[in-house]
Amino acid sequence: MPQNYYNRENHGNYELIPVGNFKLAEGGIIPNLELAIRTFGTLNEDKSNAILMTTWFSGTTKILEDAYVGKDHALNPEKYFIILVNQIGNGLSTSPWNADESIKAGKFPKVRIEDDVKAQYKLLTEHFGIQKLVLVLGGSMGAQQTYEWAVRFPDFMERAAPIAGYAKNTEHDFIFTKTLIDTITMDPAYKEGAYESIDAMKGALDRHGDIWNVVGYNPEMYRIEAYKNLGFKDGLDFGKNFTMKYFEPMDPNTLLLCAWKWQRGDVSRNTNGDLKAALGRIKCKMFCMPILQDMFFVTSDCKLEQEMIPNSEWRPIDTVWGHLGLFGMDPNYMPQVDKILNELLATEV
Amino acid sequence: MPQNYYNRENHGNYELIPVGNFKLAEGGIIPNLELAIRTFGTLNEDKSNAILMTTWFSGTTKILEDAYVGKDHALNPEKYFIILVNQIGNGLSTSPWNADESIKAGKFPKVRIEDDVKAQYKLLTEHFGIQKLVLVLGGSMGAQQTYEWAVRFPDFMERAAPIAGYAKNTEHDFIFTKTLIDTITMDPAYKEGAYESIDAMKGALDRHGDIWNVVGYNPEMYRIEAYKNLGFKDGLDFGKNFTMKYFEPMDPNTLLLCAWKWQRGDVSRNTNGDLKAALGRIKCKMFCMPILQDMFFVTSDCKLEQEMIPNSEWRPIDTVWGHLGLFGMDPNYMPQVDKILNELLATEV
Repeated sequence: MPQNYYNRENHGNYELIPVGNFKLAEGGIIPNLELAIRTFGTLNEDKSNAILMTTWFSGTTKILEDAYVGKDHALNPEKYFIILVNQIGNGLSTSPWNADESIKAGKFPKVRIEDDVKAQYKLLTEHFGIQKLVLVLGGSMGAQQTYEWAVRFPDFMERAAPIAGYAKNTEHDFIFTKTLIDTITMDPAYKEGAYESIDAMKGALDRHGDIWNVVGYNPEMYRIEAYKNLGFKDGLDFGKNFTMKYFEPMDPNTLLLCAWKWQRGDVSRNTNGDLKAALGRIKCKMFCMPILQDMFFVTSDCKLEQEMIPNSEWRPIDTVWGHLGLFGMDPNYMPQVDKILNELLATEV
Repeated sequence: MPQNYYNRENHGNYELIPVGNFKLAEGGIIPNLELAIRTFGTLNEDKSNAILMTTWFSGTTKILEDAYVGKDHALNPEKYFIILVNQIGNGLSTSPWNADESIKAGKFPKVRIEDDVKAQYKLLTEHFGIQKLVLVLGGSMGAQQTYEWAVRFPDFMERAAPIAGYAKNTEHDFIFTKTLIDTITMDPAYKEGAYESIDAMKGALDRHGDIWNVVGYNPEMYRIEAYKNLGFKDGLDFGKNFTMKYFEPMDPNTLLLCAWKWQRGDVSRNTNGDLKAALGRIKCKMFCMPILQDMFFVTSDCKLEQEMIPNSEWRPIDTVWGHLGLFGMDPNYMPQVDKILNELLATEV
């Protein structure tokens, strides 16, 4: 059952913050939406030292806490009040498995990136009384949320750092995500989201994990056998005992909800489909931080977006781990990220 | 049923050449193995003008005939005797659907790239009486066969051109192929290869096609909407009505057989696992022709192999279509290939 995975033992001592009955962009309401958050450091008196970091697909705030936050990192709790927020439907915030009976499991309504950002806005303004962020950032779907933040609430942040993600999703990425979705929905045990247990979905979750093994890393990682540093004997051992094991305990309805959301990330919804106009709204200082070896949030597409953003700079990250380098397996990853974020945080705005 | 697809109406007027009861590397025998071939041009008196081209995964000689052969191409039937050969188990040569009852469908034995090359050697020497090829070439699995030819029978060809393939398959590519296999074997209609009809496997074949949509082309193809030149309105339309439609009539047992073979392509089996020694055996003039935008036979891995091959040269091809550029959808693809092959054919050996 999902509660064997989505709990405080596995994901840190998160708080659940109610943001009310929440009306969604696609219609429908989440009754009593709760956002699961972790905070680090202290909010100063004038509430001017807050940083918001958002989660990626399948991830929770635990990995952000472990990899990105600490006094040796740019996200230093001794200097900043750091809010890590779980996206809607990720297993910790209100999600298919823990939602009100009326929207449980396969009945959960469609959620968009903009819903997350609106809910996070309520969290920051109503719960914390924050009116301005020092920095908003996130990786992958967290980058989608970051772009949406900067376009939708351009006066709310001084800086932004989307890592390995698009402002407007591409067709290629949409189809990649579709293959992930298909592994779950085409499994006979799926039953429109009413599967009997997570175990019954193990085959589907393993195939899901295996597609990540192909596209989540990249050929170079396998060639140099970078997984050996983590103790795996070969690529198949790594794929099975790292990637597949990571996805195996997850709730498929949660993955499906987030995958649907991921496919449709698009800031141009703010401007009737005009991407240039949407990105032109951005006022904060932005560092765009794609991963050079990423196979689906590819730098060539990221670059075209960055060129449309006033006051933005191009700060790519180099890691053979590709997209899933976000997890920080590469010892050279976080030093690059911290260096770039420190430079961004030192920028006068 | 497979014969609705694998026939002369769809795949050209191929001949079936018997090569006898054929003993396989993995054990087992194919009784009365037949290779389906197409030939163009005339074999000259001293049998010194023959070119052999081999097929890729899912492909037959029809696409080679249509895209690569003709008097305006390097493979010019007015100058050369061109033999196009279908790999074992590809639907035209002896395959799970048309084999002897004892090895039909899911009972078909495992076949390796080296089996194809040995069978083709019999075809050339015993059926045609050919002792030397002007050129051996092929794309993708055809490149695997080309490398195997050059290592196993180094005196048999003057030139070789592996296009978009590895001499020794990589872990990344093995896992990619595994995701293709999984779409078929995990489908409840599969029944260990005893599915009731091709139609019953449509869902599996569509998911198979969709993974090709992600990895077979590449993000740039989608970004520039290159599919519009073929009349498709967007990436999803293209994915569904081109790629999926292409795979839908194919026999899943045929795809599985070839995928297993593809995963294990490895010339170092000739030299007890020593790849450098295997590639060092190559005597012919070889042009290595990877596709720069290929997402699974990637140039960085191809380059390492090329550097181990004496008398080889690096001749990459540039096409936004990525690996499936092999089909020739890009009007700039065949001109590049022909130019390189013409240069290779003009090389004194």
